[in-house]
Amino acid sequence: MSGNSFGKLFTVTTFGESHGLALGCIVDGCPPGLMLSEADLQRDLDRRRPGKSRHETQRREPDQVKILSGVFEGKTTGTPIGLLIENVDQRSKDYGNIARQFRPAHADYTYHHKYGFRDYRGGGRSSARETAMRVAAGGIAKKFLMDRYGIEIQGYLAQLGPIKGHRLDWAHRDQSLFFNPDPAIESELEKYMDALRKEGNSIGARINVIARHVPPGLGEPVFDRLDADIAHAMMSINAVKGVEIGAGFDAVTQKGTEHRDEMTLDGFLSNHAGGTLGGISSGQDILVSMALKPTSSLRIPGQSIDIDGEPVEVVTHGRHDPCVGIRATPIAEAMLALVLMDHLLRHRAQNADVTTSTPVITK
Amino acid sequence: MSGNSFGKLFTVTTFGESHGLALGCIVDGCPPGLMLSEADLQRDLDRRRPGKSRHETQRREPDQVKILSGVFEGKTTGTPIGLLIENVDQRSKDYGNIARQFRPAHADYTYHHKYGFRDYRGGGRSSARETAMRVAAGGIAKKFLMDRYGIEIQGYLAQLGPIKGHRLDWAHRDQSLFFNPDPAIESELEKYMDALRKEGNSIGARINVIARHVPPGLGEPVFDRLDADIAHAMMSINAVKGVEIGAGFDAVTQKGTEHRDEMTLDGFLSNHAGGTLGGISSGQDILVSMALKPTSSLRIPGQSIDIDGEPVEVVTHGRHDPCVGIRATPIAEAMLALVLMDHLLRHRAQNADVTTSTPVITK
Amino acid sequence: MSGNSFGKLFTVTTFGESHGLALGCIVDGCPPGLMLSEADLQRDLDRRRPGKSRHETQRREPDQVKILSGVFEGKTTGTPIGLLIENVDQRSKDYGNIARQFRPAHADYTYHHKYGFRDYRGGGRSSARETAMRVAAGGIAKKFLMDRYGIEIQGYLAQLGPIKGHRLDWAHRDQSLFFNPDPAIESELEKYMDALRKEGNSIGARINVIARHVPPGLGEPVFDRLDADIAHAMMSINAVKGVEIGAGFDAVTQKGTEHRDEMTLDGFLSNHAGGTLGGISSGQDILVSMALKPTSSLRIPGQSIDIDGEPVEVVTHGRHDPCVGIRATPIAEAMLALVLMDHLLRHRAQNADVTTSTPVITK
Amino acid sequence: MSGNSFGKLFTVTTFGESHGLALGCIVDGCPPGLMLSEADLQRDLDRRRPGKSRHETQRREPDQVKILSGVFEGKTTGTPIGLLIENVDQRSKDYGNIARQFRPAHADYTYHHKYGFRDYRGGGRSSARETAMRVAAGGIAKKFLMDRYGIEIQGYLAQLGPIKGHRLDWAHRDQSLFFNPDPAIESELEKYMDALRKEGNSIGARINVIARHVPPGLGEPVFDRLDADIAHAMMSINAVKGVEIGAGFDAVTQKGTEHRDEMTLDGFLSNHAGGTLGGISSGQDILVSMALKPTSSLRIPGQSIDIDGEPVEVVTHGRHDPCVGIRATPIAEAMLALVLMDHLLRHRAQNADVTTSTPVITK
Repeated sequence: MSGNSFGKLFTVTTFGESHGLALGCIVDGCPPGLMLSEADLQRDLDRRRPGKSRHETQRREPDQVKILSGVFEGKTTGTPIGLLIENVDQRSKDYGNIARQFRPAHADYTYHHKYGFRDYRGGGRSSARETAMRVAAGGIAKKFLMDRYGIEIQGYLAQLGPIKGHRLDWAHRDQSLFFNPDPAIESELEKYMDALRKEGNSIGARINVIARHVPPGLGEPVFDRLDADIAHAMMSINAVKGVEIGAGFDAVTQKGTEHRDEMTLDGFLSNHAGGTLGGISSGQDILVSMALKPTSSLRIPGQSIDIDGEPVEVVTHGRHDPCVGIRATPIAEAMLALVLMDHLLRHRAQNADVTTSTPVITK
Repeated sequence: MSGNSFGKLFTVTTFGESHGLALGCIVDGCPPGLMLSEADLQRDLDRRRPGKSRHETQRREPDQVKILSGVFEGKTTGTPIGLLIENVDQRSKDYGNIARQFRPAHADYTYHHKYGFRDYRGGGRSSARETAMRVAAGGIAKKFLMDRYGIEIQGYLAQLGPIKGHRLDWAHRDQSLFFNPDPAIESELEKYMDALRKEGNSIGARINVIARHVPPGLGEPVFDRLDADIAHAMMSINAVKGVEIGAGFDAVTQKGTEHRDEMTLDGFLSNHAGGTLGGISSGQDILVSMALKPTSSLRIPGQSIDIDGEPVEVVTHGRHDPCVGIRATPIAEAMLALVLMDHLLRHRAQNADVTTSTPVITK
Repeated sequence: MSGNSFGKLFTVTTFGESHGLALGCIVDGCPPGLMLSEADLQRDLDRRRPGKSRHETQRREPDQVKILSGVFEGKTTGTPIGLLIENVDQRSKDYGNIARQFRPAHADYTYHHKYGFRDYRGGGRSSARETAMRVAAGGIAKKFLMDRYGIEIQGYLAQLGPIKGHRLDWAHRDQSLFFNPDPAIESELEKYMDALRKEGNSIGARINVIARHVPPGLGEPVFDRLDADIAHAMMSINAVKGVEIGAGFDAVTQKGTEHRDEMTLDGFLSNHAGGTLGGISSGQDILVSMALKPTSSLRIPGQSIDIDGEPVEVVTHGRHDPCVGIRATPIAEAMLALVLMDHLLRHRAQNADVTTSTPVITK
Repeated sequence: MSGNSFGKLFTVTTFGESHGLALGCIVDGCPPGLMLSEADLQRDLDRRRPGKSRHETQRREPDQVKILSGVFEGKTTGTPIGLLIENVDQRSKDYGNIARQFRPAHADYTYHHKYGFRDYRGGGRSSARETAMRVAAGGIAKKFLMDRYGIEIQGYLAQLGPIKGHRLDWAHRDQSLFFNPDPAIESELEKYMDALRKEGNSIGARINVIARHVPPGLGEPVFDRLDADIAHAMMSINAVKGVEIGAGFDAVTQKGTEHRDEMTLDGFLSNHAGGTLGGISSGQDILVSMALKPTSSLRIPGQSIDIDGEPVEVVTHGRHDPCVGIRATPIAEAMLALVLMDHLLRHRAQNADVTTSTPVITK
């Protein structure tokens, strides 16, 4: 229940630092009887893994996950599932400058003030490396949601700096270097990223995630609304600065007649709501969008101070993603899976007796 | 721990329906010794109260809060604080149509599917009337934060439909009919709202909230990051569709050199981060922005279905805010206060022993 | 999640002081569709109510409970249920001595040290008066458990000081002044209590509670075992100093061959386990026993100190139960109901898909 | 928040089966700056480790704990601490019978019914092997409590079957084969255990734990009382069937004048309360006692049924403690440490501002 757990009934608790011995997590609350193997989790870990192309950090981490408990004869047992990923590529090096400097836009300054000192090796706990365990845990949720309820979750790069896509071609996304679903902009993205890397700079991004076939009824108002828990989940991902559900900030300028999703016997006529009404899923697609800030580690010098309060010039060398947003795609999918899984279990607890006569509208 | 509680150490649990006997809440975890009276809470309740001008619903609710426990000789005792507001203006009327129809963009459809039936009187639990208790509870947090730590929280209307302000004049905000801090647009807002009311339509809005003098160190990564809990809090407010911290969605097109807030001995040179780094407060102002959808209750007919799956035309009569965003201002302030209060207590628990030598940068 | 909430999915949060305006609670997580009225809750409140005979405190509290929310058209809606009991008989009097003295065996000393000051009127929050709300909330759980699952919960006085009963005659229990189920000892109890009252002294008691027809499978090892949560629940009742499940402390001298409950096709051959194995219900009766200390308020003077550290002689006047254990019977039933209810919902969440082929043994 | 986490602010989450790859846990909420090494945890693990004498199971587990995260430069960083113990001695063998039979007094029957199937190897998750991680995590709490607050926690065997000790000689306890603090009964215990092993039977035990120098004020009424959380903690240990605080079940026959602990300027005159009043620590020693049932695995045949509902005769071969109570001593210490640690942090959160003038009585 301290800060490193997520979910009330499907609870994921993680540990691990960027350059420590290992990352790990415990998934508590997975229903028994789910077919599960390490390969099921490895697929998304491989999508998130660094070093798949020149546009990502060149750190070499195989991110091989081991299931240490909670699975027997190929099925989950209902007991906690322990997962472990050993860190392989923690280059032994001199951390001298980093140890004393507060890198701008990094968590160095706040960790130092919160805890009195910090594990400065590769950002320690504040590194996005921590999200590998989110992807592993999310993989369990994804499998349960699909196997038992047919719920499908997919994320994609919607915008990178000034470049926006306009098509949703999932097959292309799966072969894109950027989780980009629009073939028309792929080469533009490559060129932009190459120029950026040369410049030593970085760029922000927008990632969208969609969940399909979510049954109506998930969400526990008034505080644990489905949309509120999604916002929590997404904003807890490193570098995320904004979250939208459905129309999001476009709602500011919408009139009521425009925003409201009218209903007919054939279903909803639009989806400005993004799949939730009153914080409860409506059966429509869940539509989530988020903004990720540009990577903070830059080769271009920046002003800062050190732990003694002296002014310093900070330059980051080494292996960093010029756009952290890209690899956030499978992380965002995982977080949405965790939220839906948790709410599905909560719904089963409280509403096992509910039967309704109205036909569910799914369009 | 079910869905109607917020906060881990400063825990607010609420109950109450729009047209039930009363609204109430329990605030558990308030430190002892805080001077507290009903008048302290009434001030913000009056700011949120309906019917203060022709631009708000004309429902007449005095929203007088009673403190039922947890305060003795004018001070909090450390035991749970029970708060109660009786509902006064629940017009006895025929709910016939509403009882059977699913109003578009309302929670009727999802409540019906989740629970099998619903309290349809005035929206029941899904009504924004529930937020009165958030404001009352938030008032306790606000007072503690100010009295003990000098933390100040202020919200304002940043945009209403197409109309944006450009100045932060707090004195004007306090006399504005719209929590609008820019005197230059006040009359434009009035005209817009009058036209809207005449039209029977509604409009979205953007609300911003700022917290000043927040000490560095609040936030519990990796999941209970300060920004993640703020996103949760804001998205749990009725009608909110998007949340931003600092640069928010502008970060999508920012380069790293633009976004990073460099530091000098005189402080941070900018605040794109919005006061949090790595999910922990930095001592800079906490900057939060949110989008609210237009009110769903419209006099202009809309298509829908009823609980028997028959097509219906829905028209809402009666008393509704044409822009729910406006009165959300004190609610957003309250929610930010609840988040900060909770994290302050969590920080005290874990970091009571921490002393740091670096001067804190507050600019 | 602060200290005044109980249960993870069926969550009860209470407030209220002995001589404050009112007691109240919020029950969050009750499934929708349960038929519920105030009369359903009043029955157990009347069993707990003070002043039913000369053997109890003569404080006159009607303890009329009001349901303020969460029930519509006679059924629970799935939203939080607000309950309120107004305090009627808070005699206005001079609290002078009590305000400054630490009464032996009372919570005066510890509340003063924990919170820095205390609401001394009638013991404030530490008074057993608080348990009225547990009984009210437990009444909802009891009704759900019986209506939906046929689970029955009954408590009784097993021992009062040196006097033990030997029969379980539920009809007699219901008319006994002491929740005593053995008609043979009723008059002995009366005499003992009369003498005790004359003497100005008090006495301890043992209360047992049984739950029947509990389905196998409730309990969430390894920490939220069913027996562990029962121990938590019972020890949280004022004056309880010991809790046993099944054989309890008799297990210390039992050999394995004696303690183990062998199983045949006709069921278990004994119930030393008390209905749980490995922290999970087995389908056998849940057997709980608890020890309650003697009432701390005595007319016989005792030594203590006051808030200035001066020695004082404490004498308690006024209206007190000479045996707090007696009225604890419905409280213990209520707490067991809350535990079972919570675990039933947790089980539904996680094990909705489980089907087993083995016949359930219920004997 | 699912069943394998303990503590609200100092949260321990465990995983691992008896014959799985490894046991592990995550300790979240440890304050930063605590000096901590694996050796600090190994000491108590060695006390709990099986196979130290012929009176314990002969399974050979070195129980070497690894710290995987949360410690940097010898100090805790405030981030989650991952701990791992690899299982070494899981003999590869034929589990044929065990896989299908429900051993009496074991959790086989209930796990099967709860989850639909079970990991039967060595009891799977229901094995007491799981408690190794409690001891490891408790070691962190113990060290913090001692280093920062001088709190000392010690457990001992108070009774084994019919044999009770009468002296508290801690030096003897540390060299005893049974955590027995009374040298006078050591050889009697040896003889009793030898006879028991020969017989193929097992025996129950009583374990006591004491915490000294606990500051007054710990505990969060009304549900998270210190005594209630202790009861929860102890009853969550495998085989525990009863828990007492202070006088415990002796309170049943005590009069008020006998039970109440009078206070003088020199301190409390007795400690029937066991160190808590109103659920809050008083500064006196915390006194806890618990009953453990006899080991369920016996060489003497017992009746049962199998998963097909057929009657079977169960005989357990192999390596088992004839008295599980003995090795429960360090586990009970660990659980008390976890409770006190959690409440200490909770107290710091809520009562950081409290100052009291009354001298604290510690005798």
